Amino acid sequence: MAIAILPPPIILDRLLREWLREDIGRGDRTTQALVDRKGQAKWIAKAPGTIAGLTVGARVFELLNAEVKFVPVVSEGMQCQPGDVVAEIDGSLAALLMGERVALNLAMRLSGIATLTGEYVKQIADLPAKLVDTRKTTPGLRLLEKYATQVGGAVNHRLGLDDAVMIKDNHIAAAGGIEKAIALIRAQMPYPLTIEVETESLAQVEEALKFGADIIMLDNMDLDMMAQAVQIIRQRSDRIKIEASGNITLENIRSVAATGVDYISSSAPITRSTWLDLSMRSI
Amino acid sequence: MAIAILPPPIILDRLLREWLREDIGRGDRTTQALVDRKGQAKWIAKAPGTIAGLTVGARVFELLNAEVKFVPVVSEGMQCQPGDVVAEIDGSLAALLMGERVALNLAMRLSGIATLTGEYVKQIADLPAKLVDTRKTTPGLRLLEKYATQVGGAVNHRLGLDDAVMIKDNHIAAAGGIEKAIALIRAQMPYPLTIEVETESLAQVEEALKFGADIIMLDNMDLDMMAQAVQIIRQRSDRIKIEASGNITLENIRSVAATGVDYISSSAPITRSTWLDLSMRSI
Amino acid sequence: MAIAILPPPIILDRLLREWLREDIGRGDRTTQALVDRKGQAKWIAKAPGTIAGLTVGARVFELLNAEVKFVPVVSEGMQCQPGDVVAEIDGSLAALLMGERVALNLAMRLSGIATLTGEYVKQIADLPAKLVDTRKTTPGLRLLEKYATQVGGAVNHRLGLDDAVMIKDNHIAAAGGIEKAIALIRAQMPYPLTIEVETESLAQVEEALKFGADIIMLDNMDLDMMAQAVQIIRQRSDRIKIEASGNITLENIRSVAATGVDYISSSAPITRSTWLDLSMRSI
Amino acid sequence: MAIAILPPPIILDRLLREWLREDIGRGDRTTQALVDRKGQAKWIAKAPGTIAGLTVGARVFELLNAEVKFVPVVSEGMQCQPGDVVAEIDGSLAALLMGERVALNLAMRLSGIATLTGEYVKQIADLPAKLVDTRKTTPGLRLLEKYATQVGGAVNHRLGLDDAVMIKDNHIAAAGGIEKAIALIRAQMPYPLTIEVETESLAQVEEALKFGADIIMLDNMDLDMMAQAVQIIRQRSDRIKIEASGNITLENIRSVAATGVDYISSSAPITRSTWLDLSMRSI
Amino acid sequence: MAIAILPPPIILDRLLREWLREDIGRGDRTTQALVDRKGQAKWIAKAPGTIAGLTVGARVFELLNAEVKFVPVVSEGMQCQPGDVVAEIDGSLAALLMGERVALNLAMRLSGIATLTGEYVKQIADLPAKLVDTRKTTPGLRLLEKYATQVGGAVNHRLGLDDAVMIKDNHIAAAGGIEKAIALIRAQMPYPLTIEVETESLAQVEEALKFGADIIMLDNMDLDMMAQAVQIIRQRSDRIKIEASGNITLENIRSVAATGVDYISSSAPITRSTWLDLSMRSI
Amino acid sequence: MAIAILPPPIILDRLLREWLREDIGRGDRTTQALVDRKGQAKWIAKAPGTIAGLTVGARVFELLNAEVKFVPVVSEGMQCQPGDVVAEIDGSLAALLMGERVALNLAMRLSGIATLTGEYVKQIADLPAKLVDTRKTTPGLRLLEKYATQVGGAVNHRLGLDDAVMIKDNHIAAAGGIEKAIALIRAQMPYPLTIEVETESLAQVEEALKFGADIIMLDNMDLDMMAQAVQIIRQRSDRIKIEASGNITLENIRSVAATGVDYISSSAPITRSTWLDLSMRSI
Repeated sequence: MAIAILPPPIILDRLLREWLREDIGRGDRTTQALVDRKGQAKWIAKAPGTIAGLTVGARVFELLNAEVKFVPVVSEGMQCQPGDVVAEIDGSLAALLMGERVALNLAMRLSGIATLTGEYVKQIADLPAKLVDTRKTTPGLRLLEKYATQVGGAVNHRLGLDDAVMIKDNHIAAAGGIEKAIALIRAQMPYPLTIEVETESLAQVEEALKFGADIIMLDNMDLDMMAQAVQIIRQRSDRIKIEASGNITLENIRSVAATGVDYISSSAPITRSTWLDLSMRSI
Repeated sequence: MAIAILPPPIILDRLLREWLREDIGRGDRTTQALVDRKGQAKWIAKAPGTIAGLTVGARVFELLNAEVKFVPVVSEGMQCQPGDVVAEIDGSLAALLMGERVALNLAMRLSGIATLTGEYVKQIADLPAKLVDTRKTTPGLRLLEKYATQVGGAVNHRLGLDDAVMIKDNHIAAAGGIEKAIALIRAQMPYPLTIEVETESLAQVEEALKFGADIIMLDNMDLDMMAQAVQIIRQRSDRIKIEASGNITLENIRSVAATGVDYISSSAPITRSTWLDLSMRSI
Repeated sequence: MAIAILPPPIILDRLLREWLREDIGRGDRTTQALVDRKGQAKWIAKAPGTIAGLTVGARVFELLNAEVKFVPVVSEGMQCQPGDVVAEIDGSLAALLMGERVALNLAMRLSGIATLTGEYVKQIADLPAKLVDTRKTTPGLRLLEKYATQVGGAVNHRLGLDDAVMIKDNHIAAAGGIEKAIALIRAQMPYPLTIEVETESLAQVEEALKFGADIIMLDNMDLDMMAQAVQIIRQRSDRIKIEASGNITLENIRSVAATGVDYISSSAPITRSTWLDLSMRSI
Repeated sequence: MAIAILPPPIILDRLLREWLREDIGRGDRTTQALVDRKGQAKWIAKAPGTIAGLTVGARVFELLNAEVKFVPVVSEGMQCQPGDVVAEIDGSLAALLMGERVALNLAMRLSGIATLTGEYVKQIADLPAKLVDTRKTTPGLRLLEKYATQVGGAVNHRLGLDDAVMIKDNHIAAAGGIEKAIALIRAQMPYPLTIEVETESLAQVEEALKFGADIIMLDNMDLDMMAQAVQIIRQRSDRIKIEASGNITLENIRSVAATGVDYISSSAPITRSTWLDLSMRSI
Repeated sequence: MAIAILPPPIILDRLLREWLREDIGRGDRTTQALVDRKGQAKWIAKAPGTIAGLTVGARVFELLNAEVKFVPVVSEGMQCQPGDVVAEIDGSLAALLMGERVALNLAMRLSGIATLTGEYVKQIADLPAKLVDTRKTTPGLRLLEKYATQVGGAVNHRLGLDDAVMIKDNHIAAAGGIEKAIALIRAQMPYPLTIEVETESLAQVEEALKFGADIIMLDNMDLDMMAQAVQIIRQRSDRIKIEASGNITLENIRSVAATGVDYISSSAPITRSTWLDLSMRSI
Repeated sequence: MAIAILPPPIILDRLLREWLREDIGRGDRTTQALVDRKGQAKWIAKAPGTIAGLTVGARVFELLNAEVKFVPVVSEGMQCQPGDVVAEIDGSLAALLMGERVALNLAMRLSGIATLTGEYVKQIADLPAKLVDTRKTTPGLRLLEKYATQVGGAVNHRLGLDDAVMIKDNHIAAAGGIEKAIALIRAQMPYPLTIEVETESLAQVEEALKFGADIIMLDNMDLDMMAQAVQIIRQRSDRIKIEASGNITLENIRSVAATGVDYISSSAPITRSTWLDLSMRSI
């Protein structure tokens, strides 16, 4: 299981506070009028899946009331079964009820992503290829959704438009060819960044190789072409990373991995996943 | 088809700007280095579904470059088939490429919700009961996700913890009974708000009725009990709204509606939906 | 005395911090240069009135220095006389002096509102009608000013343009009649929200009744017409709320209440109130 | 009539946007559902007073819709009578209705302040003494409320804790005397700032004079002592500014001015004023 | 050594948090993956100079982890030599490494300013004239850079465009002369503010004197003219402050001071200073 | 000359607005009272150097007044001599005077950096090695200061803690060796990122090579050791980038470049540069 690390509080809290304000609005009419004591609660899984986001949930409650104790019963990335208690919480009951929805919504969404990611990863677990995510993430949640794919066993692709270069057909056309595009960007980008070039034919693979791409994406190629592309690239260098992309499914991911690519990118773990059902029961 | 209305720019733009900053980070290394001309693009559906969020996408591009023209080809709530052009865009190609992911991510997410919502709504289209959503929404996107359920034909439930009162078992326990809970809240809440009480038995239904609930939620009742509850409430008043809740599926929603409830709430259109596949092709 | 509840810290603190920054600017030139020890202070009433906002003041000091102890001597909503000590404070003297103006300005403004509200409420205390506030509040202070009217014994009307529907003449004209207006809004609004219709004649009252208004506002009617309107509405339903509005004064409020309306709305407690004089004396 | 100048848009707009968001919340349920055309409106005075804040109101509408034309009919600081049209507005009717309350609330509050300020100023119009405001302002509105006192004919005192030094008894005690206090602050403050010392006796006046105060405040002195203090100070220098403070009323302000002080500070124009009634009528 | 005071946390923390987010971005990829224990570190001077900003650095670490102990070994304004330990830090090693760059960048910049300021100040230490800074400061850092000039022995000039009036040639031209300019501003500005007039000739000095400038700036005058200007002004009043400005260097500052001016303003301590080299060594 | 690209307005404007607010505070007391017409101005170089930041200055004025026309006379990266007009501005004179300081402060700082960067770059212009910057940048200005080093001819190193991995001695110690450190990070980092390892000995170079560093930093090595390190690395791979670091000066940079390293990192262009003197003359 890959290690997944959340951004530090100085980054994360700004998001969580914004989200609490979205739900609480001008005040929790019900809870604030009625609840004024301590309580305990449990988070219980109502469906099988991979748990992710308990520590995010914990932080949500802490931001409402610093005294709340949230104890994860299972670790991030562990499997849960319906009925499993996944966390125990103790503290201001008003904070528990006011934060419940934001905390659970996050954990349900992240666990849902981790669960589907895990299914893709399982198909290729014994092969060297790694599953990677994409920039198809819910606006505002990229850091957390990419955390969840890691919890599920995937590796992150770039986090934004700024931490790696990705040259697509539009860019190539605008620049007047791969060579020019790479040259223009290398002259301007922070030097530790890597350049990935999207290719759709073996000719483009050759060109990307020739002009120094660090990563070559094989976009929507059939398995044969993909295998040839891998061979061409590996003959030239074993440091260039090869990424397969396009219509990856649970059915075809293993065949894609078998072509020898290093990475298989898919938005499915994020765009095709549903939420893992979790509920809070206060006691 | 229900009318759906987005929040005005003074509310929406703050979110969109934040989301653009999330993706662009310190700058789009690729596009800013290479692209410096105008261009056209189309948004094309790659799967069948209900379109929602085109106007949100339009605004994303406008925030990057006020001159971009984004023309929806289909209206919000219309069905699309794979290959359909759903929008045409004309303007700074750099703005198109820099905003593409945020704009499409939103439209894909919202269209996915509208699509699944539509499937639930279709089951009960000829019955008086209405489908309503819940507060299980992706943090930060509540306004937009609730817009999408409307586009799909549902009605919104409350938007946050502050625009309606919802008394659940925890609240009842903390207050010492339904009567006390309602009394305490009525004395404190803005008077136009309504009070909804969650009930799990006919006895609780009677109690909620007796103490003046405006909306009675029948939570996780079987169809028989639900029908009885409806009868009990209707005998007393036809202004009290009745909401069924709990484990609503495409299979059982019609039977639930047949019990005579006014509203059927379900988080499924949001938590069980996947993204509708849309892509941008620049030309 | 009605129960009044402040928004939770995650909502309130953002306002208080902004207001402290407004006053402190680039730093308190005087206090920061001179004061570096602990101290005690008292808040003393200099005029008779109803106290509101002590807990807000307490929070202002805490945000400057978490160790400050602010102990209210009287409860929110209690009467004070000139010379009464209403709160005792102990902690960093620099925090006390730096926060003094913001904390007192808020408490003076809120107590002034609570005081005038109380005078209106006293006129109708033995009648069923309740005084309600309006959206005529100082920009930025709505949550706090509406808290103060509650402390003074009033009930809140809607908090903003989003938590209840209010159909006025302009809206009716734009929609083409009350019937169309209500129909259009019901199809789009969150279902727990209520619809209030402003009426100026008995004919409009009948129309509002017929098309399902939840609240009927009798706007600027004379007492006779008001009494007739109440009768018409009550014959039809006892769940529809009736609100009288327009030129309510301390002199006429009792007669208005005597017509049998449920609510009397007036901006006067907020727009006609002056500040209750309080001062801080450090010791 | 003094010249009054609003802060530039880069400062003001941030406040206005925040205030519009406070009122609009998640969207204007009524107007957005019903109104979709252009319209005209007038602002009409419903009570006599001094107009202030029309340009602030204009900006509120512009922030909602850049095409709205708001034409003041009277200038800031002019008197209005009931029934006077004070502004004419033309543009998106939805923007007019959505911005109405924030724009009017501001103009009513500011006009109320300008009106009462004007009454105080009129008492001393033929004397050299000037009325000045204090830091008793509504949190968040300081810039606008101090603009309104200017419109009413007063002069602003310092805007915050940072743009002038004010040494009060607490500061003197903490520093160990006026001499030490002034010395400590002069060594640390931006040199163009001025130092005001609060004095309650002639002895303190002498001391403030001796150690170089730029402004001497005569706090709560009776008229005799005040006159003596003025004489003492004027013998020494005619550049030192003298400010009278404490319980200034419409009745006593003229006598205070007659003592020869330069400035008379009073919070009354802000804390004792009520709102000037203005209404918007759309046509 | 002058006393220098930082703005209180409610003002300062907002800046520091923004700066930490600038550096950390989406997370510290290296430290968060590897470091999970406590540690100690020292800050060591690598060049001789005047230390400023240690308490700012301390706060940077506290914002990342409230338990970090940062103990300055030397006081602000003290001289350091290469190899000197200037601070000792103990706490979460991850916080130390994540905050290192922001904390040190600030302290190095501020110490560099304090160092060069000190060199200018030393030239005139035995004369009454004081060195003052200008508004040529790095955007965003004005409060801290002006703190640093104080630490180095200078006095602050105004902090912004709002806390003192500075009438330059453009303003005089736009107003139609010094007399009109001063009159217009006095009628509008907060009365405790002072008015400084920039003069380039003795005629302008006379005019500024005549119309009541509080501070007269002698801009780019040669030493002879400066001395004459001082004489002219001093004959009239000893309360008017005289500031020399323009091309002040380490070589000429003493001669300028000898003319009898009160203040010598120079941007050099900020615009001509380089960073004092400090490094963090963890142990 | 390298191409330098500013972040897009959606990123940059947030900073510029914050900086304008820092300087303007509660309003420009002088300009707002006096200036109300159009004007022209020129920016003039007062020292020789490399121009950077004109487009940033242009944007500052536009944010104050959208009609201001700012026309750069020289291109970014061009040399200027004292007296050269570098930009011409036309528009609201109030906007010109209110924005002058922020705009010029930025351009002066950035031009100063570009100028010193250019001096370093000139020493090695005919060699393959490139100068790169570091994270020693003024807090808040990283994007702009790194833009300026590009304008001066350098290449950017990573922009923050998140867009590349840099393993230093502390990280190695905490992880228990280079091998473990690289393994732990590779398992967690976005896969396109590169890993740089700081080495201080040839043994460490060998280790970094063995465990797959993408970039090897030779930290504070003497020229002999550096040359050996280059040889060792080049024998193994020509894709691994080699960076020299530590005490780079104008004197030694050419010798360092001669060792064959790819990149030479130095904070000097930022930490040792002073501002290029520019002034605005309005006409």
